[in-house]
Amino acid sequence: MEVANRLVAETRDQVDQAEAPPRRARPWQRYLEADLGLREYWYPAAHSGELAEGGTHKVKMLGEEVLLVRKNGKLYAVEDRCAHRGTRFSERPLVLSEDTITCWYHTWTFDLEDGDLRCILNEPGTALAGRTGVRAYPITEAKGLIFVYVGDAEPPPLEADVPASFLADDIVMHYAEPNVIRANWRLALENSFDPGHHFIHNWSQYVIESGFPMTFGYVAKPGEEAGEVKYVVDTTGPKGFSRCTRTTELIFSAVIPGKDGRPDTTYTAPAAVGRSHQELVDAFMAMPPIDVGIWLPSCNETVNFPSDMITYDWLVPIDENTTRSFMIGGRVCATEQEAADWRGEVGRVEWREPAVEKFLVDDNAARESMQTFYETENGWDRERLYRPDLEITMFRKFFSEHARAIQTPDKLVAPRSRRNPTRGRTR
Amino acid sequence: MEVANRLVAETRDQVDQAEAPPRRARPWQRYLEADLGLREYWYPAAHSGELAEGGTHKVKMLGEEVLLVRKNGKLYAVEDRCAHRGTRFSERPLVLSEDTITCWYHTWTFDLEDGDLRCILNEPGTALAGRTGVRAYPITEAKGLIFVYVGDAEPPPLEADVPASFLADDIVMHYAEPNVIRANWRLALENSFDPGHHFIHNWSQYVIESGFPMTFGYVAKPGEEAGEVKYVVDTTGPKGFSRCTRTTELIFSAVIPGKDGRPDTTYTAPAAVGRSHQELVDAFMAMPPIDVGIWLPSCNETVNFPSDMITYDWLVPIDENTTRSFMIGGRVCATEQEAADWRGEVGRVEWREPAVEKFLVDDNAARESMQTFYETENGWDRERLYRPDLEITMFRKFFSEHARAIQTPDKLVAPRSRRNPTRGRTR
Amino acid sequence: MEVANRLVAETRDQVDQAEAPPRRARPWQRYLEADLGLREYWYPAAHSGELAEGGTHKVKMLGEEVLLVRKNGKLYAVEDRCAHRGTRFSERPLVLSEDTITCWYHTWTFDLEDGDLRCILNEPGTALAGRTGVRAYPITEAKGLIFVYVGDAEPPPLEADVPASFLADDIVMHYAEPNVIRANWRLALENSFDPGHHFIHNWSQYVIESGFPMTFGYVAKPGEEAGEVKYVVDTTGPKGFSRCTRTTELIFSAVIPGKDGRPDTTYTAPAAVGRSHQELVDAFMAMPPIDVGIWLPSCNETVNFPSDMITYDWLVPIDENTTRSFMIGGRVCATEQEAADWRGEVGRVEWREPAVEKFLVDDNAARESMQTFYETENGWDRERLYRPDLEITMFRKFFSEHARAIQTPDKLVAPRSRRNPTRGRTR
Repeated sequence: MEVANRLVAETRDQVDQAEAPPRRARPWQRYLEADLGLREYWYPAAHSGELAEGGTHKVKMLGEEVLLVRKNGKLYAVEDRCAHRGTRFSERPLVLSEDTITCWYHTWTFDLEDGDLRCILNEPGTALAGRTGVRAYPITEAKGLIFVYVGDAEPPPLEADVPASFLADDIVMHYAEPNVIRANWRLALENSFDPGHHFIHNWSQYVIESGFPMTFGYVAKPGEEAGEVKYVVDTTGPKGFSRCTRTTELIFSAVIPGKDGRPDTTYTAPAAVGRSHQELVDAFMAMPPIDVGIWLPSCNETVNFPSDMITYDWLVPIDENTTRSFMIGGRVCATEQEAADWRGEVGRVEWREPAVEKFLVDDNAARESMQTFYETENGWDRERLYRPDLEITMFRKFFSEHARAIQTPDKLVAPRSRRNPTRGRTR
Repeated sequence: MEVANRLVAETRDQVDQAEAPPRRARPWQRYLEADLGLREYWYPAAHSGELAEGGTHKVKMLGEEVLLVRKNGKLYAVEDRCAHRGTRFSERPLVLSEDTITCWYHTWTFDLEDGDLRCILNEPGTALAGRTGVRAYPITEAKGLIFVYVGDAEPPPLEADVPASFLADDIVMHYAEPNVIRANWRLALENSFDPGHHFIHNWSQYVIESGFPMTFGYVAKPGEEAGEVKYVVDTTGPKGFSRCTRTTELIFSAVIPGKDGRPDTTYTAPAAVGRSHQELVDAFMAMPPIDVGIWLPSCNETVNFPSDMITYDWLVPIDENTTRSFMIGGRVCATEQEAADWRGEVGRVEWREPAVEKFLVDDNAARESMQTFYETENGWDRERLYRPDLEITMFRKFFSEHARAIQTPDKLVAPRSRRNPTRGRTR
Repeated sequence: MEVANRLVAETRDQVDQAEAPPRRARPWQRYLEADLGLREYWYPAAHSGELAEGGTHKVKMLGEEVLLVRKNGKLYAVEDRCAHRGTRFSERPLVLSEDTITCWYHTWTFDLEDGDLRCILNEPGTALAGRTGVRAYPITEAKGLIFVYVGDAEPPPLEADVPASFLADDIVMHYAEPNVIRANWRLALENSFDPGHHFIHNWSQYVIESGFPMTFGYVAKPGEEAGEVKYVVDTTGPKGFSRCTRTTELIFSAVIPGKDGRPDTTYTAPAAVGRSHQELVDAFMAMPPIDVGIWLPSCNETVNFPSDMITYDWLVPIDENTTRSFMIGGRVCATEQEAADWRGEVGRVEWREPAVEKFLVDDNAARESMQTFYETENGWDRERLYRPDLEITMFRKFFSEHARAIQTPDKLVAPRSRRNPTRGRTR
């Protein structure tokens, strides 16, 4: 709360300036440099089901091309680029022993654990063995997701990089299809936590069908921003923010002032027409309180929407302009039968259809709608923020202070690290 | 005539040099910088029919993205990019009061007349109101076209920027579909006035069907260039050029000299084979005289082709490499019935089919045929002009002397001007 | 042999270094600059059948756009770009006399032999005649291919730039369709001569159907590299290399050493499973010996595969990232009937199907698999070579010493040369 107060104070000035000079140093400078995401973090790379026993799966994340392998029950992740002449292993993946990958072009064969060149089939006894290689990545699996660690240091436990609720024993997951968003990961992530964005959901099919209008934004009452937002540190360090939507201002209609003496216009959310403000507030308060969190490196967590479940939306950078969204619906299940139902038809009907297909997909259009401005029109300098962006800029500042490292283009071509990581840990 | 003489004299030298050093400063330097067109001019943005009452229409012109709005009979044009975070209004245009546009993402609401931020639906009483905004453009409508003024100064009357004939009370317009040309606007415009380009129309369907050959070019007789070209100034200032094709040299066949003692080859336009030169000249002189004009900022006007009508071809820059062509056929009509017929079937049969679909569309291939050279092969430096290009270079020089301003890339990101323009004038 | 010894010695060091500093000057520096191919060489431009009498054919080679013309039995090649304003002649080629090309836009008419401006149809008596023009290229035809000389010097005889066998009187050609490869020409050419690449053909349909396994690479026995590779100079100068696969090490299975005390894994080529090494070696030795050659500027020649025939694979740069492959199967024919059969069904069944469609096409995937690395990931600096690459680096060094000239981007926009070449020579 104290930290939140400080962040509020430090960032409010920035936001409230009506005419910020575009080149002035911002308190979230480091965030601006993170086009490719954060380094030294665990990120989801694939659903468990995308990588069968004996199979491979290629994925691009944070600008790096990675080949995932599952062999004899163990997981491996290596750079998908032969050290010899750059051919991608994934074009014809050859796992010819229990722990190697062989390049289909010139037979260079690499250790899947540490990436070292093990041997070359057409040059027995090569002097290069152990003297060159490809990158290897720590990899683990939990709750039906495969996580890869992108970094050079010894990885922390997975717990450090996922929301606390995610690894609880009694929570069961239902998965939506991974989704590719044509926007930088920061634009996608900010949208997920953005208190001012809810206006768009007045046109979401879920809202239209339920007949319950969305507030125009879960915007904190002036002066109460710090109370609204919880700054979260757990045993593994600072993790992110969480916000309860319960105490924000609820707005279902607004006045557009007339000009030059012409009358004002009142605009009311479509589903709110004909209903009193108090009636809507009462109905809203009768629903379970929705909490929204944002966690390093790039996970959004929404609790209690549309009912007793948690939605995780992991937004993993593919490259500077594209993001993969892993959406997962979790519910606490008491029995094996409940768990099986949730993974199947119940999860589909109660979570995937209402929360994802009829609601959250609409955020993708919003995320993508900012991309041109930020990608080609100098948006990070030209953006003009407003008070509800305070929570976004708090996150930017938090990020700039606490991110372990930033993924930069030079990292993509740097020589591989020789770290020998623990890997293959499976839950 | 005096000005024309001077321009002829000043530019002929330039053209006749066989080996112009490629980097030498040219008398039309300013023209070379106008990749994006001219600034401080009225341009057609859309057909009136593309913008219905209560509707919106987005258009890119001179590199700027503009949203057109018609509300309660009034016209508005604003920058199609929210001042907050760059979202395009046009993705879900929300005109929630009589004179505002609301961004569908975060509810920022802008005055359609001057672009100022009026209010924000989810932050009542925002301190930003009136302190930020988007660009607003003067807009007007005439003869079935919507015109937008791109510039920062107070706009002149529309009369200043259209051919004199266009606004006459008794002229009635028939419209062809707007056409996107994959060429810079200067290549498109030069083609329309180019005395040397008519050779291509020997393959136009109209010429083949009519059986009347095209001259290889409406090229002035040597020494008579200045007499050929009328320099036009009206009460609003210098406007452009006009040329009568009647007194040019008519060429329906030409000799290709043989080499090393081999015989000459005479090439005759397909439709001219078997007919005497005098016969063709007499037939040509019996037709109404065709006048071709070129007007600032980028309109071509052709009078009396194929019969008693005027064709306007407005070539509006979309961006550096693409141009929108608005083609309009005008005819003086004495009665309402004549006017209705011209707008309908008569205009289609007598103008759109013969003049556009069977003739002028062939110019688009010619316009696009130069684009690679000028876009990627340094064409503006490497071009080698010849005598018939004199009228083009006169225009380039005229343009460099008289264009009010040039649209440059920095204008696309400059802060909006705070001008409060007259707008909504409708004819 | 002496030269081969020297090249082996000079390049082996380079190859064997396990950690070559990436920026160090390499002995094949000039090769690295040849993105667009070699200059001052004859290259195949088209099949004879692609250019009919009276017709034209446009082709891009070494970054230059060239128009081929066949008129009255003579061949011509000129720059496909009008000297006036850059229009491509090929969009509507007009050969209006026996030896000229006329631009369809403004009637500029060029001499097909030397490229000079001959006349302009709509400006009789132009002063520019003979004072400007387009490039003209020496052109000739042999064995069903049209060759164009790209360079400024007087061209050597065609014999200098093709494999010696190609012009023999009794060899008859069967043609495959030209093929566009999405890879730089050097990656394509190196693949064709690469002793380490044969592993990929264990998955080729021809090998699967024949049941005879491919060795993992035709890799020379250590210390015998120089004996393996013949350096070829003929009367016209240094031409390239040739290698007999007969004396290389044959490898049909290899051991992948186990790690941390785990057992080794032996991998055997699919078709070799259950057959002894000696049995396979004996069978291989009973087949005719295969010779592979690589010739300046960019031709691969394979003798005796799959039986008594020669495969030529000319890899002609289109631009920096694309290569056209002309594949031709030659067989010595004793009678006209044999020749006719080879050109038709016999060539299809005995050469095109087994050698091309069921075998060599697989090399295109390998060639393209390196392109991303070399085009966008600094591959020429990051590649890590190994001993079997010795023959490739010998070629690179040979190339750097003997290539007549390199095609560079500035050559593409340089003024045309005024050389008056011998051309139209037809075999």
